[in-house]
Amino acid sequence: MDLKYMFYPRSVAVIGATNREGKVGYAIMKNLENFNGRVYPVNPKYDEVLGLKCYKSVLDIEDEIDLAIIVVPNVVVPQVLEECGKKGVKSAVIISAGFSEVGNYELEEKIKEIAKRYNIRIIGPNCLGIMNTHINLNATFAKVFPPKGGVSIISQSGAVLNAILDIAPLLNIGFSKVVSIGNKVDVQESDLMEYFLNDEDTKMVVLYIEGLKDKRFLNVAKKLSKKKPIIALKSGRTDVGKKAAKSHTGSLAGEDEIYEAVFKESGIVRAYTFEELVDLIHIFSTQPTINSNEIGIITNAGGFGVLAADSCVDYGMKLANFEDSTVETLKNILPKTATISNPLDIIGDATPERYKKVVDVLSKDKNVKGLLVILTPQEMTKPLEVAKSIIEVKTTHEDLKLKPLITSFVGGVSVKGAKSYLRKNGIPSYITPENGIKALSYLYKYSLLKVKEEYDEYVQKVREEFSKIKKENEETIKKLLSNPNEYNVKSVLKIYGFPVPEGYLVKSEDEAELYCKKLGKCVMKIVSPQILHKTDAKGVIIKPENPREAFRTLIENAKRYAEEKGIKDLKIDGVLVEEYIEKEKMEIIIGSKRDKIFGSVVMVGLGGVFVEVLKDVSFGISPITRDFAYEMLKSLKSYKVLEGVRGRPRKDIEFVVDCLIKIGVFMDIHEEIKEMDLNPVFVFNDGEGGCIGDAKIILE
Amino acid sequence: MDLKYMFYPRSVAVIGATNREGKVGYAIMKNLENFNGRVYPVNPKYDEVLGLKCYKSVLDIEDEIDLAIIVVPNVVVPQVLEECGKKGVKSAVIISAGFSEVGNYELEEKIKEIAKRYNIRIIGPNCLGIMNTHINLNATFAKVFPPKGGVSIISQSGAVLNAILDIAPLLNIGFSKVVSIGNKVDVQESDLMEYFLNDEDTKMVVLYIEGLKDKRFLNVAKKLSKKKPIIALKSGRTDVGKKAAKSHTGSLAGEDEIYEAVFKESGIVRAYTFEELVDLIHIFSTQPTINSNEIGIITNAGGFGVLAADSCVDYGMKLANFEDSTVETLKNILPKTATISNPLDIIGDATPERYKKVVDVLSKDKNVKGLLVILTPQEMTKPLEVAKSIIEVKTTHEDLKLKPLITSFVGGVSVKGAKSYLRKNGIPSYITPENGIKALSYLYKYSLLKVKEEYDEYVQKVREEFSKIKKENEETIKKLLSNPNEYNVKSVLKIYGFPVPEGYLVKSEDEAELYCKKLGKCVMKIVSPQILHKTDAKGVIIKPENPREAFRTLIENAKRYAEEKGIKDLKIDGVLVEEYIEKEKMEIIIGSKRDKIFGSVVMVGLGGVFVEVLKDVSFGISPITRDFAYEMLKSLKSYKVLEGVRGRPRKDIEFVVDCLIKIGVFMDIHEEIKEMDLNPVFVFNDGEGGCIGDAKIILE
Repeated sequence: MDLKYMFYPRSVAVIGATNREGKVGYAIMKNLENFNGRVYPVNPKYDEVLGLKCYKSVLDIEDEIDLAIIVVPNVVVPQVLEECGKKGVKSAVIISAGFSEVGNYELEEKIKEIAKRYNIRIIGPNCLGIMNTHINLNATFAKVFPPKGGVSIISQSGAVLNAILDIAPLLNIGFSKVVSIGNKVDVQESDLMEYFLNDEDTKMVVLYIEGLKDKRFLNVAKKLSKKKPIIALKSGRTDVGKKAAKSHTGSLAGEDEIYEAVFKESGIVRAYTFEELVDLIHIFSTQPTINSNEIGIITNAGGFGVLAADSCVDYGMKLANFEDSTVETLKNILPKTATISNPLDIIGDATPERYKKVVDVLSKDKNVKGLLVILTPQEMTKPLEVAKSIIEVKTTHEDLKLKPLITSFVGGVSVKGAKSYLRKNGIPSYITPENGIKALSYLYKYSLLKVKEEYDEYVQKVREEFSKIKKENEETIKKLLSNPNEYNVKSVLKIYGFPVPEGYLVKSEDEAELYCKKLGKCVMKIVSPQILHKTDAKGVIIKPENPREAFRTLIENAKRYAEEKGIKDLKIDGVLVEEYIEKEKMEIIIGSKRDKIFGSVVMVGLGGVFVEVLKDVSFGISPITRDFAYEMLKSLKSYKVLEGVRGRPRKDIEFVVDCLIKIGVFMDIHEEIKEMDLNPVFVFNDGEGGCIGDAKIILE
Repeated sequence: MDLKYMFYPRSVAVIGATNREGKVGYAIMKNLENFNGRVYPVNPKYDEVLGLKCYKSVLDIEDEIDLAIIVVPNVVVPQVLEECGKKGVKSAVIISAGFSEVGNYELEEKIKEIAKRYNIRIIGPNCLGIMNTHINLNATFAKVFPPKGGVSIISQSGAVLNAILDIAPLLNIGFSKVVSIGNKVDVQESDLMEYFLNDEDTKMVVLYIEGLKDKRFLNVAKKLSKKKPIIALKSGRTDVGKKAAKSHTGSLAGEDEIYEAVFKESGIVRAYTFEELVDLIHIFSTQPTINSNEIGIITNAGGFGVLAADSCVDYGMKLANFEDSTVETLKNILPKTATISNPLDIIGDATPERYKKVVDVLSKDKNVKGLLVILTPQEMTKPLEVAKSIIEVKTTHEDLKLKPLITSFVGGVSVKGAKSYLRKNGIPSYITPENGIKALSYLYKYSLLKVKEEYDEYVQKVREEFSKIKKENEETIKKLLSNPNEYNVKSVLKIYGFPVPEGYLVKSEDEAELYCKKLGKCVMKIVSPQILHKTDAKGVIIKPENPREAFRTLIENAKRYAEEKGIKDLKIDGVLVEEYIEKEKMEIIIGSKRDKIFGSVVMVGLGGVFVEVLKDVSFGISPITRDFAYEMLKSLKSYKVLEGVRGRPRKDIEFVVDCLIKIGVFMDIHEEIKEMDLNPVFVFNDGEGGCIGDAKIILE
């Protein structure tokens, strides 16, 4: 059922309403006093709650009920929900706690079942409730009802939501829909985002996430982010954080790298701290976005100009070159001692009038795509007057409809009033210039986000091709994967057309000699399902001089290794005699793992120390489109190495891209594979392709 | 002369005092109204200023003058300073602007000369003035006089100082001495730091730096930081920032890497943004430092607990394991639904009483070395009452004298009062938990700062040895350096005992053949003062099969290169035939440059892509002590590679350390060298030393 009954209910029943102050059932009734629709308290203990007739059961209400707010003890929830079903209630918000978050999975399942049976949409349980400022719906027990505006927010933590709502009036951040999503027994982030997609009152969406549950998130977010900015703060980024998340909610925080990929692919702007989140809501909710990083900085304090300029470099912003006409006009406006440059130091004695003129001139400058106005309280400074003059320009200036204008009035006692004034009139004021620059940089980054296309012709082609190959070689592949040693895995990869070195599994010295001769220069490797790390077992010999002796050595080394490691019944499948790759090559790593929510996740990184020491890897979620594969590579710090540094030739990047796409599809159609490591993958010079040096597979 | 007259004057003359409101000379007189000493306005235009007798000249005052504040137009400054000299004034603060910062170097030199002649200590010109809260001395034109306290601050920007003073009352940051240092014609940061070293009222020192002028800074800072924390914000970190700095003040911002090294070596805590600076002053001025990173987090909101835990990982902090007794006590205090873990979620309905008990228990826990208390305003929360209960614990708890306790009350309207209350009572309250964790991490980092020892026996030994070598080989070295090609530079290095490959400069095919034979495997390189990048000129042949042919090829390649590049009169010194290093080796880069202020700066980084792509290098200032050389290496992201990754052998780190020390000394005694590049330096396996593969020198 549509969520419109949730957000635009004509009638609301509060099940568990009470007259007892300090109780949640009271707070909600209080908060609903201004609601534009009809409110029905339900509680068998009362005849009247806050002056309204109180019903014994929702079944007793004569009116139709669009939304039920449930605040009864956890064990009673199934019963009242059953009654809601019988009554034909269309949607419910379950505030009550005591479900999966404390291990009560069974009770939560019961709710799910009832909701499904009666087709009731449910938000919660274990949540703060929901708001819709446009109809004065405050179905929460929060203390603050925020100003009306374009921000819709979905939070997995009531407390984090509370904090944001509490800050909102100070910064004058206006909200549309506010949702505390709780344990997500029914309605997920994706459902809400889908609703916000066509909700005209929602101009941007904010997410506080602890852990996601549904794969749809990715595709819905993609659609939404193309129309409206989405900003997300995801907690549990780190291992320590994750541990805390587990004991906090019933949701499992996923690996952060995967979330990073999800956000990137779906065009979500990610905030990493709470301060960033608030700073970003502040700018996105009031200012237009920009597709250039060239900005102008106005300051009455040189020092802060320099600090802001430093920040520009930190956050990838540039100081615009003023147009000639701007420079000329500025010369007439500013005192002779002022230098016309960017940051523009309009000197310590800057008057409100000077600020006004300068803001006006720079707003007209076509090279300046965004503006930061800095003020510090100095002897002659009139912060409030300056604020007023800025607002005057802002409200009348045509150019500022498309140009973000933000401020940073740095100080305390002297600038408090001015900051409030600016914020009240829709201009963000940041506590420091650096925070301001960072915020502007996110406006710009938003324009750079490339949402991954959902349909990619090439991926589709590969998928069809691979499905056909799978079908035609069903039995062979199944048999090979039943014993996934290097030789068998490479054989499977070869069936799908991945380039692997020519190789033979030999079982005797004679065979070893024969195939070494055949290949010329070769590598010999032990093949045993019990030996995953061959080098640890001295299980690799490069360019053996005497293949027979090498064969014996490998077998002996394997046995010694097994003994040392306490491996019993060592199974040796043979020795792999493989062509030695002579070509100029670079080693990279490609990996993939199956994520419970998002499916096949593909990883890439440059080999050697880049992965081992610097952990320089990037992730993508299958399907990997060609564009996104390039993005994955470009986001590596070591990307330049692939492009060729200091006269070394460019590597075959196109080969790597193709490999990433195909590994994604390969994992998609082989759900029995849990993890896969291709390490190393050799990449040859541009145009010469590459070759998979070693391959491991771990089955589910 | 001692700076005591500057900070503890008995009498102050204000030269340029005026009755005209809005003028600087008026503001200063106003600010001096509460001064505990005697004030004398000087201005030929007035008989009286603000009720005090006004003098035509400082010479007319009968009293002795300890401090003159000069606020006359720039051109008049020399004259009034001359009068101060005649009068025997001991110190002066020149507020007047219009000197080197606008290119008026001559006028500034004049002042310098007068000051020297009369032995007057001078702060400024072009500054805001100075304060000493302990005697109510406010010899500035700032609007705000901050609370009394232990922070002494030196700022190179009046505006930045103004902003800090303006914030101070809100955060209740107490100041001792406040100095706007201006153009630093006489008194430098080092002079002030030296004074603060023995100033009992100064508990910590804060610096805002745009550019330093004196080498003494390093040594004074070392002494001071051992006794009192120093926090510095240096603007002009980046190239863009630097450009702005140049047009702002007369000072040249140095390369940031050098400042980074200076701060590190001298034990200065560096803030990178203005917000960080204020956050750090907030915690350092109120809380004890810690030498452990294990902290406890208390929260009434799980979500913020997770965000704080994430931050712990970001900033190198750890969540303490509570003692068993703590866990037991907490079980009795907290509701049954609470999980006893760290961060400790004391649940949304936490009362002031519960906060109090929990803070008390964790303060006693010996595993918890610092505390962060988080609060978000929820339905039942009483922020101000919680704040009060925290202050109660803080003021009575013995353990909290040695344990930092900070808070983050996250929100806006509901927590404003509580935050003020906390701050007023000496407990920092951060806008977010993440900022709080960051601040705590700096308290801890301060304990880790290893101030570089001034005297190092080994460095001294090397210095003596190198001086002797220099003396004994004066002529040879001079001649070699007069044409600093690779062969000659290596010859110089060899004289000093640096390991270089065996090599011969040959001038004919015959010689080439002869020496190649002698060396076995060899490398041949072109030697020409006009060819700095040999590989670009195809000027290197490794293991030549035919030395005669290789000789010809190198000469031809050099000629072709010269033609392409338009190099006229190509001078070829010969071909260097050098031993080919067969040993297992790793390439690193060691470089050095001469800094105008700090002298020889030594750089180290791992070779290849680490330097070229990742810019992973670190810096030190000579003398490089053994300990600091290790620090330099450990601060490289790629350090692990030297230690040996994945079974690869450890490299001879001791050799690198020795090399860094010696290169520093070498540069110190060869002041004619501007820059030096040893690239690559080969490092062999542990215990086997290393060898300088290539060496370049650029003379002053």
